[in-house]
Amino acid sequence: MDVRIIICGLGRVGQAFVGLLIQKDKDLKKRYDLNLKVVGAVDIGGAAVSSSGLPLEEVMAHLKKGGRVEEMSGFGKKGLTGKDVLSSVPADLLVETTPTNIKDGEPGMTHMRTALTLGRHVVTAAKGPLVIRYNELKELAKKSKVKMMISAATAAALPTLDVGLSCLAGTEVLTAEGILNGTTNYILTRMYEEGTPYKDALAEAQKMGVAEPDPSIDVEGRDTANKILLIANEVFQGGLSLGDIPVEGITRVTPEEIQKAKKEGKVIKLIGKAERKDGKVVASVAPMPLPANHPLASVRGTEKAISYLTDTMDRVTVSGGKSNPVGAAAAILKDIIRIYQN
Amino acid sequence: MDVRIIICGLGRVGQAFVGLLIQKDKDLKKRYDLNLKVVGAVDIGGAAVSSSGLPLEEVMAHLKKGGRVEEMSGFGKKGLTGKDVLSSVPADLLVETTPTNIKDGEPGMTHMRTALTLGRHVVTAAKGPLVIRYNELKELAKKSKVKMMISAATAAALPTLDVGLSCLAGTEVLTAEGILNGTTNYILTRMYEEGTPYKDALAEAQKMGVAEPDPSIDVEGRDTANKILLIANEVFQGGLSLGDIPVEGITRVTPEEIQKAKKEGKVIKLIGKAERKDGKVVASVAPMPLPANHPLASVRGTEKAISYLTDTMDRVTVSGGKSNPVGAAAAILKDIIRIYQN
Repeated sequence: MDVRIIICGLGRVGQAFVGLLIQKDKDLKKRYDLNLKVVGAVDIGGAAVSSSGLPLEEVMAHLKKGGRVEEMSGFGKKGLTGKDVLSSVPADLLVETTPTNIKDGEPGMTHMRTALTLGRHVVTAAKGPLVIRYNELKELAKKSKVKMMISAATAAALPTLDVGLSCLAGTEVLTAEGILNGTTNYILTRMYEEGTPYKDALAEAQKMGVAEPDPSIDVEGRDTANKILLIANEVFQGGLSLGDIPVEGITRVTPEEIQKAKKEGKVIKLIGKAERKDGKVVASVAPMPLPANHPLASVRGTEKAISYLTDTMDRVTVSGGKSNPVGAAAAILKDIIRIYQN
Repeated sequence: MDVRIIICGLGRVGQAFVGLLIQKDKDLKKRYDLNLKVVGAVDIGGAAVSSSGLPLEEVMAHLKKGGRVEEMSGFGKKGLTGKDVLSSVPADLLVETTPTNIKDGEPGMTHMRTALTLGRHVVTAAKGPLVIRYNELKELAKKSKVKMMISAATAAALPTLDVGLSCLAGTEVLTAEGILNGTTNYILTRMYEEGTPYKDALAEAQKMGVAEPDPSIDVEGRDTANKILLIANEVFQGGLSLGDIPVEGITRVTPEEIQKAKKEGKVIKLIGKAERKDGKVVASVAPMPLPANHPLASVRGTEKAISYLTDTMDRVTVSGGKSNPVGAAAAILKDIIRIYQN
């Protein structure tokens, strides 16, 4: 089966995805009967377009040399936007990997709206549009009878949604608790295991590239909030907005609190939690002391995990998954396969 | 969507499944648009049959009183076998919950062959037929273009196959390592944490109902071997037979070995392992010392878990899942939903 893809965003995740398509081409045909063709590749300055599929090795070689897609001879079109390409090039699926923008979700928002309205599946790593307008986009997908797959926006290679929606299908999920941000878990692990003060642990994480130069989105709990929002909406059909979620980060966690918890046999973790309470879905983000036998207590360093409590299957916990652009790209590829699996 | 089910086997898992159908009826219609009807319920002495769907509350009340299906007035037919019902009652799907029989797989083998040949999906908790004739049954399903879903036979509510096949779709799974048997993990945990000798830990497990009066299938590693065989065949497409798997149980693990490992910071666990080696798929079962930071090292008591190492998503580990008839029934229900999901 041929699948014609338009990819918007050729940063680290977008390039890793193109790399995977090259690397996995034979395997995808053999194992899944999928011939994935990129008919449009869009970045800030324009696009490369080919209705029969772009030569991906050439695209990658061009980008690796610092070239831009719109400059590719035979394929490049300067100034063409994602919306232009989506509206003019026949395709089955949009892969959205533009940077996350929590203010207005652009340009991902326009890309996703356009694709869904035109009846194309959307597979996205961009959290912005989802966090801002989840309900609208979900409704659009439903109306057009296409899928909107968001694994890469909800902890990427850690299969938070696959487990919540498929592995636990038919159960009632009572609570979801997640360690959804590697940076904060790394800092808390250092503070717990070595007694490092918060500021030193953060500085070290920044030195290692585990934390961003501006770490506020992570350490203030906002990244975790974005993810638990999406999980609450997908798994619990919560219809929540970001404003419904009280968020506390780890910036005020002291070494004393951590050592006190440790003496009581507990570990403090930054937990994104969603649950049904009095018939309503509620979610929150806060540092929480977990007993040592809690399945999330042993999740160390940059690792992520989510633990679901259900009515008929009891507790199911999944951990791990690569936290880099290749992991995110692999999550995108997984979502594409799942659209056509069955 | 109406789904007509024939269920063979009304022991603990079969009854738990019928119980779930009653409990979840509204939810299944609302969330998944599935109207699951049981058109045939078969046990040793005969069957109850109704092409418009059996009254499940009545069936359960009858069974709870010690009654037999073939005696149900209006529906019961004495002497009718699974094969008879499968051949004569129009249906979409077989749920196979007869006891596991590793000798010849019967009666599940006949039921599954009949159903698959007639183009009906099969969802099975019975390991026997799968362990003995996996390749033949898989081929039959392929030929008839139906699904054979075996979650309930591969650690039930622990989603071993869902994770390996769906959550990791598109990756190359390099190794799968599982703690797939709760009884042996309970015994090893007691030996590790309290220095209990093997025989005492086993006796205690038997007293608690965690181990069977005849524990040999568990403690000799054969249950783990059955499960890793199926996982190797589904996830790695290994085409393996039971005879290909060297199996060592936990009966010869001494407290001294466990304490020695402990001093080295290691935990001994009974591991079912499958991997690709020199282009071939190999599997094995043996007690293995795991370093403390191995994701399976912290899996305690009767809990089960599986850890997959992949090329593009790194390591993904899933643990938990209820280990009783309700958990197995929930896994069957999940498989049914997954057949019709998408």
